[in-house]
Amino acid sequence: MEKNTSERYIEVCFTPVLFPYIMLEKNYIVVLADILRATTSICTAFENGAEAVIPVADFKKRDEFKSKGYVITGERDGSTLEGADFGNSPFYFSKDNVKGKTVVVNTTNGTQAIEMVKNNCEKIAIGSFINMQALSDWLVKQNTSVLILCAGWKNKFSLEDSVFAGALTESLLKASVFKPDCDSATASLELWNAAKHDLVSYMDKALHRHRLKKLGLDDVIEYCFTLNLTKVVPVLQGTRIVDISK
Amino acid sequence: MEKNTSERYIEVCFTPVLFPYIMLEKNYIVVLADILRATTSICTAFENGAEAVIPVADFKKRDEFKSKGYVITGERDGSTLEGADFGNSPFYFSKDNVKGKTVVVNTTNGTQAIEMVKNNCEKIAIGSFINMQALSDWLVKQNTSVLILCAGWKNKFSLEDSVFAGALTESLLKASVFKPDCDSATASLELWNAAKHDLVSYMDKALHRHRLKKLGLDDVIEYCFTLNLTKVVPVLQGTRIVDISK
Repeated sequence: MEKNTSERYIEVCFTPVLFPYIMLEKNYIVVLADILRATTSICTAFENGAEAVIPVADFKKRDEFKSKGYVITGERDGSTLEGADFGNSPFYFSKDNVKGKTVVVNTTNGTQAIEMVKNNCEKIAIGSFINMQALSDWLVKQNTSVLILCAGWKNKFSLEDSVFAGALTESLLKASVFKPDCDSATASLELWNAAKHDLVSYMDKALHRHRLKKLGLDDVIEYCFTLNLTKVVPVLQGTRIVDISK
Repeated sequence: MEKNTSERYIEVCFTPVLFPYIMLEKNYIVVLADILRATTSICTAFENGAEAVIPVADFKKRDEFKSKGYVITGERDGSTLEGADFGNSPFYFSKDNVKGKTVVVNTTNGTQAIEMVKNNCEKIAIGSFINMQALSDWLVKQNTSVLILCAGWKNKFSLEDSVFAGALTESLLKASVFKPDCDSATASLELWNAAKHDLVSYMDKALHRHRLKKLGLDDVIEYCFTLNLTKVVPVLQGTRIVDISK
């Protein structure tokens, strides 16, 4: 569909693999969603007073970061990475652990997604159920279109990220300044409509929820699917994510 | 998720771009779905007595096919291709036009999808709403898992193909021999649940329906979204698709 530059669109990209097929124009804000658990954890860090979050795909600079007093987080297959202070659960991103600090978050999917889009959009923001309304309010005030980029699971479609895309799409459409611009946005709205009356129970259908359960990491489920616990709006600036709501 | 070889799975692939990320084992039957309009037209051809359908991505061999007495179909941007007998609408695949004949169908998406998967699966079958139940009954009788491959639109997610994937998934699950194996199957079921009570009206949400309308090609909508008009089961054998229901 040809785009009218005076209109503001909502697009949903179900996995980063599909990103190259979206005709993104420079004035888009990309919202990155990796609900279980990276983007929920990042929002938690800011709610608990972190100064900045640095997403990294590998740990090569770990010692350099440590020497600066940064907090290092990361895990692989359910175990805290060697040299990390703690794992990826949002519960580790407590006031005691992160207040006033710069936190290095090891996230392969998230960092790759950021690298892929950062030169093709105006801004990258971090989305989760826990900051959904604050993010939506901020997006409405910007004069841009919005692409919701679901991190997915190993490049495949994931239910939890797609349902979040639907929740944010619904909230943005309420402001009546956006137009959905793809069948993915329509489908994500449908998934959100099916899920919203009991999000936690609904998410029992998501395969990744069961992967986390096997690893004993599913104590975060209810938290990750709770709406609007925080008003933070984390946005990438250079290589650091900061909370621009303040 | 690790696969148990004694179980039969259902996977849904929302666009061919995502196919390389699916761990397909050799014993899968791939169901190709391009509801508006390629796979609906192919099913119509067999319902009206076509002997075989040959899908081609380009028209290089057109004269060779013509000299064999084959019927040639194809269009670009709403106009019948030069050298074709008629365009892509299923209404052209009438008894008068196709009975007893081999029909060459020009479909870029469909042919590319077939090329991509043909060496990685047991069989490729052609799916549409008009042959859904017959296809489902046949699939249940095979001793295989099923991957529903949505053709999508220019590599993007398309609503009509995904809703069909949900319809077929529901029908297969009723047989109690399959297990859904991805969040895409779950999501497609949800879309089908939202659509099934009034499929034609629901499909007004699909962008491709509006693309066809602009080109004056949307007289086929109601037909393409009608369930079980035919019992054909088109399956690829070599370079030809034949109806194996007879």
